[in-house]
Amino acid sequence: MKKLIIASNNAHKIKEIKAILEEFPVEVMSLKDAGIAIDVVEDGSTFMENALKKAIEIFAISGDAMVLSDDSGLIVDALDGAPGVFSARFAGEHGNDKKNNEKLLKLLEGKPIDERKAHFVSAIVLILREDKIIKVQGEVEGYIKKEPSGSSGFGYDPLFYYPEYNKTFGELSEKEKNSISHRARALEKLKEELKRSNI
Amino acid sequence: MKKLIIASNNAHKIKEIKAILEEFPVEVMSLKDAGIAIDVVEDGSTFMENALKKAIEIFAISGDAMVLSDDSGLIVDALDGAPGVFSARFAGEHGNDKKNNEKLLKLLEGKPIDERKAHFVSAIVLILREDKIIKVQGEVEGYIKKEPSGSSGFGYDPLFYYPEYNKTFGELSEKEKNSISHRARALEKLKEELKRSNI
Repeated sequence: MKKLIIASNNAHKIKEIKAILEEFPVEVMSLKDAGIAIDVVEDGSTFMENALKKAIEIFAISGDAMVLSDDSGLIVDALDGAPGVFSARFAGEHGNDKKNNEKLLKLLEGKPIDERKAHFVSAIVLILREDKIIKVQGEVEGYIKKEPSGSSGFGYDPLFYYPEYNKTFGELSEKEKNSISHRARALEKLKEELKRSNI
Repeated sequence: MKKLIIASNNAHKIKEIKAILEEFPVEVMSLKDAGIAIDVVEDGSTFMENALKKAIEIFAISGDAMVLSDDSGLIVDALDGAPGVFSARFAGEHGNDKKNNEKLLKLLEGKPIDERKAHFVSAIVLILREDKIIKVQGEVEGYIKKEPSGSSGFGYDPLFYYPEYNKTFGELSEKEKNSISHRARALEKLKEELKRSNI
């Protein structure tokens, strides 16, 4: 079975991607599984730029495996798009999910719910071979709650309120999240592309 | 007369700020005028963070002068907030206004006008003295045209279409731009704050 390396060491992301690609006849592996230790600098100004950079750098050393990369983050309208590509390091290089969430809440302090609109973005790049690169992007819209709720998922999930389910992403089951998340939507598009190009 | 150092070496910005603060009884000077050569790394995730960082670093070496800093940029909704805090270096560290504009057009290629909504943001910080810091932000909404028009202003001005005037910012006279721009709006708020705090 053909190998597919996920260009990430984020265990949460890898788990989500593996679950969504389950039906797909490839051996999905993390960077660690593939024995690749490389730190790609994510200095792009868009999610897609970062995803592309990661995929290309990993593909260059991946042997004959395919490479899938995801760059994702949260866009808050009232913060002019922040945290954006800084989502993972919003509270600085030594921050973590908790500090990032706290910073976000502080910046939105006092704002009513209609000024807390946000969306998650996932930009995914799949390199099948040198001359076959697929790019897709998925998004999901919601609001930033005034306090965290739920402990599932990761990142900003406990603050991201999804009105259709009346829950935050932190309150969704894995299955629920993987049916409507930005990453799930990007991966759905990817699957369609793969079917269309008959690979 | 009290000195006010503008924490910038961007001649266009300094000119705009000087024009808007004309009525104000301070001696406005650029970093160069003040004999300050310092390169503040703008690595914040929001405009305000960058403005604050610049102002604080310059204030620390400014003697008894006040310091005003501006961090500004363009937010394009369809690009999830990009170029955002990367506005000045969107096409890379060796880019320029022309390359940045070209990159923006390329990313929006094929999109109809209603998917080209954008706004300029200017975050301004004024440090009057160590314990008196004023922060304001101004915004102006428009659309990204399909081709540049006009040669006034700088940055993304030739692409930024302002419907109320049926012109791009690049087609506005200095006086027109300084009456409605993001920077003008931030500076208006700043002037109100100054009056209110009776300084």
